[in-house]
Amino acid sequence: MTHRVINFYAGPAGLPLPALERAQQELLDFAGTGMSVMEVSHRSKEYDAVHEEALALTRELMGLPDNYKVLLLQGGAHLSFGMIPLNLLRGGRKADYIVTGNWAEKATKEAKLVAGDHVRVAASTKDEKFARLPKASELKIGEDSAFVHFTSNNTVEGTQWKEFPKTDKPYVCDMSSDIMWRPFDVSQFGLIYAGAQKNLGPSGVTLTIIREDFLEMCEASDLPSYLRYKLHAEKNSLYNTPPTFGIYILRNVLAYNKSIGGLKAIETANRKKGELLYGCIDRHAGFYKGFVTEKADRSLMNVDFFLPTPELDDTFVKEAKKAGMVGLKGYRDIGGIRVSTYNAVSVQDVETLVGFMDEFVRRNG
Amino acid sequence: MTHRVINFYAGPAGLPLPALERAQQELLDFAGTGMSVMEVSHRSKEYDAVHEEALALTRELMGLPDNYKVLLLQGGAHLSFGMIPLNLLRGGRKADYIVTGNWAEKATKEAKLVAGDHVRVAASTKDEKFARLPKASELKIGEDSAFVHFTSNNTVEGTQWKEFPKTDKPYVCDMSSDIMWRPFDVSQFGLIYAGAQKNLGPSGVTLTIIREDFLEMCEASDLPSYLRYKLHAEKNSLYNTPPTFGIYILRNVLAYNKSIGGLKAIETANRKKGELLYGCIDRHAGFYKGFVTEKADRSLMNVDFFLPTPELDDTFVKEAKKAGMVGLKGYRDIGGIRVSTYNAVSVQDVETLVGFMDEFVRRNG
Repeated sequence: MTHRVINFYAGPAGLPLPALERAQQELLDFAGTGMSVMEVSHRSKEYDAVHEEALALTRELMGLPDNYKVLLLQGGAHLSFGMIPLNLLRGGRKADYIVTGNWAEKATKEAKLVAGDHVRVAASTKDEKFARLPKASELKIGEDSAFVHFTSNNTVEGTQWKEFPKTDKPYVCDMSSDIMWRPFDVSQFGLIYAGAQKNLGPSGVTLTIIREDFLEMCEASDLPSYLRYKLHAEKNSLYNTPPTFGIYILRNVLAYNKSIGGLKAIETANRKKGELLYGCIDRHAGFYKGFVTEKADRSLMNVDFFLPTPELDDTFVKEAKKAGMVGLKGYRDIGGIRVSTYNAVSVQDVETLVGFMDEFVRRNG
Repeated sequence: MTHRVINFYAGPAGLPLPALERAQQELLDFAGTGMSVMEVSHRSKEYDAVHEEALALTRELMGLPDNYKVLLLQGGAHLSFGMIPLNLLRGGRKADYIVTGNWAEKATKEAKLVAGDHVRVAASTKDEKFARLPKASELKIGEDSAFVHFTSNNTVEGTQWKEFPKTDKPYVCDMSSDIMWRPFDVSQFGLIYAGAQKNLGPSGVTLTIIREDFLEMCEASDLPSYLRYKLHAEKNSLYNTPPTFGIYILRNVLAYNKSIGGLKAIETANRKKGELLYGCIDRHAGFYKGFVTEKADRSLMNVDFFLPTPELDDTFVKEAKKAGMVGLKGYRDIGGIRVSTYNAVSVQDVETLVGFMDEFVRRNG
């Protein structure tokens, strides 16, 4: 039997075992071709079937209306940080960015590099170490705003917009760390982007979903081709050679997600995992101390907490590793413990961790 | 026994079987971690060992001096087409581009988008359908040129610079389709870039090699971070999450290449493959007609030829497929047959094809 651990890494992160087993089985002979999927031309009918299935499963699982295009790009959220203002903030357009954490701050900084003061900060909770999300009353959004950018889940700080920011402007959203954690209404979103390596697949694929009116805003024919959303949309993400193996794994993950009941079933599991984990933290509130100050803002994807001392944090990480659970060390700027509970982490995995946490209090509390 | 075909695709293309078998074996449990390499943090010591080994093997196999940095990026040659002028053609710098084929033309067009008439055409053989390379006497290279850009192997047309262009200016070179086909002296190269999906690994990784003085030319702190060579160099290609699985396969391919004797042994095999294939074409010169007009320019990576009629081209592709050889259909703009014989194609594979070609003449000639 293959040795497998419980994987709480923040990304790249665990993937559903059946999606990997499928890849392993056909790694040398994909779809009867006598080749690995890595070795097949991106113009072949065998690869094309994978590409189309990945796109179709994205549409189906997310319930995307016809006026959205799905793109499969490279460069992660970082390249998207630049592509967004390069494509969308032309001709004097302005946008408001909500700064809620490490990644939101990077997105804002990169957009300012391109678009200067046409990129405005709608709100920031940096003074409070991003330990909560801004309230509706704190958002300053210009009447002339082309879009409001936000980060749906803050991987480092462990906050998540379970209700999206209150505004009538279209959203542009970095969903890298919580895309497809549940069904949601996309109609207010002009653009969604997500590095695959948390909830969807391996690193090296950036799922991008763009509404037609946002595509039309991209008058970017003077940009290098790779940076143009419109060109990728026109060529169905085959303008250049796509990251074929990454897209193949994405397809496997999405097909598995569909087989277990789609995003509704995944949401049920994610909510259960959150109840278990936050329930444990709150039950031992004198021992485990959450980083996030507002319970409503607590993320169901990344759960940050501290033990009474940094030494106990270290012991916790080490003992958990011995018990077969990895990836629990907190992000360097925050410290403590971070439990990342993306879609591929099962309720049973979290039950195992919670059992360990209860026991850890008994021995050290 | 696993079903495998002989793969003559132009890219993505065949990979060494031992590199894939290694991946298959540890796909669910990499380096004893109990995780796939896809599931491991890019900041973990296990992934870091792969990353460092891929970099070190590149240095070792290519014999790179200390004043070169190796980068592992995304976006393929297409993104590099834009990054090169964005980083290097600042402050009034000019460059000369040699236009020798479909890809060289794209590189030039993208550079002109960014740098306008600071990008000049040193020579073009477009009027001759790129069926030969320009001669030294045809190159117009400005005294004020910061670099000469060329495409070392023209994948579509089947020409290859076995002797590099005659100039005393530094080279910037797209080596996507022939990197590591042999040892060579890199000292005149300021920058080399190569999409991995032909000679090195899966699509989604762009190997980039940059000389220190070229890094210093990159005063690009106003560019989105992902587009800055200097930042990637400073962060050892870990500024953002790299395409970890692609880099892992690259590592497997390079380790295999080292095990079989490195680039010297690979060159010997590539030259033998060329002799066999061009020998067959020349032996049946009344039947097989090469696309390239100058024998000295013939590529050892992509071999383009025509049969007497387009119908025979089709029959050839179909019968070859039945005989277990795929990827032989010529590029859409040229037609005929294209045999891509990258490093992973063995001498024996080419012997099989040549046997088929001889037999095909006997039956149809």
